[in-house]
Amino acid sequence: MGFTEQLRHIVESVDGSIACTVMGFDGIPIETVQAPKAAREAAALELEAAWAEYANLLTQVKATAEGLKGGKLLEVLLSAERMTTLVRLLTPEHLVILGLLPGGNTGKGRYALRIAAAKLAAELA
Amino acid sequence: MGFTEQLRHIVESVDGSIACTVMGFDGIPIETVQAPKAAREAAALELEAAWAEYANLLTQVKATAEGLKGGKLLEVLLSAERMTTLVRLLTPEHLVILGLLPGGNTGKGRYALRIAAAKLAAELA
Repeated sequence: MGFTEQLRHIVESVDGSIACTVMGFDGIPIETVQAPKAAREAAALELEAAWAEYANLLTQVKATAEGLKGGKLLEVLLSAERMTTLVRLLTPEHLVILGLLPGGNTGKGRYALRIAAAKLAAELA
Repeated sequence: MGFTEQLRHIVESVDGSIACTVMGFDGIPIETVQAPKAAREAAALELEAAWAEYANLLTQVKATAEGLKGGKLLEVLLSAERMTTLVRLLTPEHLVILGLLPGGNTGKGRYALRIAAAKLAAELA
């Protein structure tokens, strides 16, 4: 499966998904799949702007985790009132990010990103 | 229950806990409870330094989440190779942070912080 199929599988299998994106830590998206009915939510939440800013901050979080003794940063979850954001690091330059509506299946989302991470990283290699 | 009892309850009820701290976003701890056998792990992981840095970065993550349309930031999970860090925001100036060893019970930790948050926030008011 290529990027698009991988991301579509995640979005379709996790309840409450809004969109899933592979992007660089520079905040530039490589591929995005939106849930069929989520276009308006994604627009209202200014997803692209939010994720570009998060990617920038995650560069600093990653450096902090690794500069101290925590080892490599693997995963981040950010839960806000109107959206939960799940991030899995793929390569030193890339991450996959999944946006969920409140009440979405966070546990399933974390699992789906963990399972997809190795395949997505292989596509980026 | 005061701070210390609340934090001790969290550390004792969540498998894999290293330490739990109520701190300001300025990175200064108000109260910390370590798991009985976790002193060496906490020292090895340079917990205090890591958490002060995370608190500083979370100030920026919080501003980003709220400046965009995500609503108030409620919770953050950072998973690295040698430690998982769970954060729950208590007041605009304070947070509670729980460090877990890899394989610790993240789900129970998130639940314990969510349940404790209102009581801890009341103590801070």
